[in-house]
Amino acid sequence: MTGNSSDAGVPEELASLRSSIDNLDAVLVHVLAERFKLTERVGRLKAEHSLPPADPEREARQVERLRGLAEESHLDPEFAETFLAFIVAEVIRHHERIAGEAGTKPGAVRPQL
Amino acid sequence: MTGNSSDAGVPEELASLRSSIDNLDAVLVHVLAERFKLTERVGRLKAEHSLPPADPEREARQVERLRGLAEESHLDPEFAETFLAFIVAEVIRHHERIAGEAGTKPGAVRPQL
Repeated sequence: MTGNSSDAGVPEELASLRSSIDNLDAVLVHVLAERFKLTERVGRLKAEHSLPPADPEREARQVERLRGLAEESHLDPEFAETFLAFIVAEVIRHHERIAGEAGTKPGAVRPQL
Repeated sequence: MTGNSSDAGVPEELASLRSSIDNLDAVLVHVLAERFKLTERVGRLKAEHSLPPADPEREARQVERLRGLAEESHLDPEFAETFLAFIVAEVIRHHERIAGEAGTKPGAVRPQL
């Protein structure tokens, strides 16, 4: 598998790439943690003020915007849209917990994208 | 739904929170785009040097590290692990494309987490 001269330096290059991947993963985790803090505040704000939980127009704008950002940065727009849906599923889970804590019916507080 | 005095300022606060969420989403898309660039380089490097595509020890370390980072930042560690699996599924899709371009069997080049 190794042993030919073109393999010299490969372990170092691999380690360097992995180190960068690890750094970006730390960014992702911390940005996601911050994003969930914000969506929890949105959820509580809406619940406190009896605002409608879902906002289809906002959601449609978010999807379009993320697809545009993905195209600019050479990320598959379909992946970006699926990624947003993945995050939103977790947001909904958080909001159901908030609704449960507030004694309201689970599902009453929902998608704050 | 609105009209009572405690609702004053709510639209502004909601708009401010959403603006921050949008900024974080832009960060997430750009960091993900950069992460995929790195995993593509890892995939090509391994394919060029006939290195084994999967590295279960590396993967186990990554999962443990991400769970730890999640706990520190008050993100659900289970979510962080699921998130990594979600990203890895996309990495595999990229690597299958790389393998296809290189004329190797799809599936021969796989999980570079």
